[in-house]
Amino acid sequence: MVSYIKSVQNLINEFRKLPGIGPKSARRIVFYLIKLPKDQIHKFSDALIELKEKIRFCKICNNISEQDICNICSDDSRNKSIMCIVEKVSDVLVIESTGEYKGLYHVLGGLLSPIDNIGPDDLRIPQILEKLKSYETKELIIALNPTVEGDSTSMYLIKLIKPLNINITRLASGIAVGGDIEYADEITLGRAITDRRTI
Amino acid sequence: MVSYIKSVQNLINEFRKLPGIGPKSARRIVFYLIKLPKDQIHKFSDALIELKEKIRFCKICNNISEQDICNICSDDSRNKSIMCIVEKVSDVLVIESTGEYKGLYHVLGGLLSPIDNIGPDDLRIPQILEKLKSYETKELIIALNPTVEGDSTSMYLIKLIKPLNINITRLASGIAVGGDIEYADEITLGRAITDRRTI
Repeated sequence: MVSYIKSVQNLINEFRKLPGIGPKSARRIVFYLIKLPKDQIHKFSDALIELKEKIRFCKICNNISEQDICNICSDDSRNKSIMCIVEKVSDVLVIESTGEYKGLYHVLGGLLSPIDNIGPDDLRIPQILEKLKSYETKELIIALNPTVEGDSTSMYLIKLIKPLNINITRLASGIAVGGDIEYADEITLGRAITDRRTI
Repeated sequence: MVSYIKSVQNLINEFRKLPGIGPKSARRIVFYLIKLPKDQIHKFSDALIELKEKIRFCKICNNISEQDICNICSDDSRNKSIMCIVEKVSDVLVIESTGEYKGLYHVLGGLLSPIDNIGPDDLRIPQILEKLKSYETKELIIALNPTVEGDSTSMYLIKLIKPLNINITRLASGIAVGGDIEYADEITLGRAITDRRTI
């Protein structure tokens, strides 16, 4: 085992907590940072703090925002009769990047998972019915990952929303089964939105 | 292109500057950080600042240290008649991790590279002769990467030091040619130190 100076080891430990960063990557990054000028480190540190100070979650759709209501929910040019349910904030951003979708969003903040003790009340599922009524939604797109949890959450939502007589659609195939929406390329994801099919 | 909120985009940009982190990894890390509690972000940011506040370079060997003189140079139990020349600080740490070496170090801070306009005066090469004399060094181990720049820097050092009648050695083979000392495993690197051969 390599024994580092405490301040170096501390920072290596912080980087190791990040997704996709192992011990050697963390070390490489920290030794890179040691060589950087002070002002660049401060810029990095300020960007970290700023993220936490400025970012909050939209009160309507749970997307991230620098205001109480996000840019999408407060945009009058969006088609308010379509709503798209996604698992997480980053899914909103990739769907936006396709330019194929002009409706509203609802971010669940996770997927149903009995094993992890995550039920409908832990996600933002109860709020959906209310929103669908107040917006008089005509179409609901369920854009959850094609995984076990994604599929079972979709099934739960379909059962819940079916009585409202809303047109429920799912993203078309195009996303590899078992894959992750967040990492789909923009063209594939755009086609999947265009080809969405009624359930 | 995905258009993010400014504070999110700022932090993504900062992460993208780090070695080995591409746009998708940076995004993944930032969305992970958004979900973390505030105190953990502050811990991360503090660790970054602390690194820059506390870390300086040893006045004798150029290794990183929290004091003016590093732990190795100020350790009386080290064998002061052996010196090991390495390219960078992280090389000191991996060699230390093998437990095979008990001498002193000299960190060059880079390698000779005419293409990049890096000459002997840009590295800590002039200081070496002085140190070798004042420490009455008996053996000098050249532990530079077996790359073009590493080899030419070694040749330069050998020519420079040969007149002093010091035993000059290089790390034994065991490190793959074209590879990087920093990423060698501890056993291979340990064997390379034991098997070092006179030039």
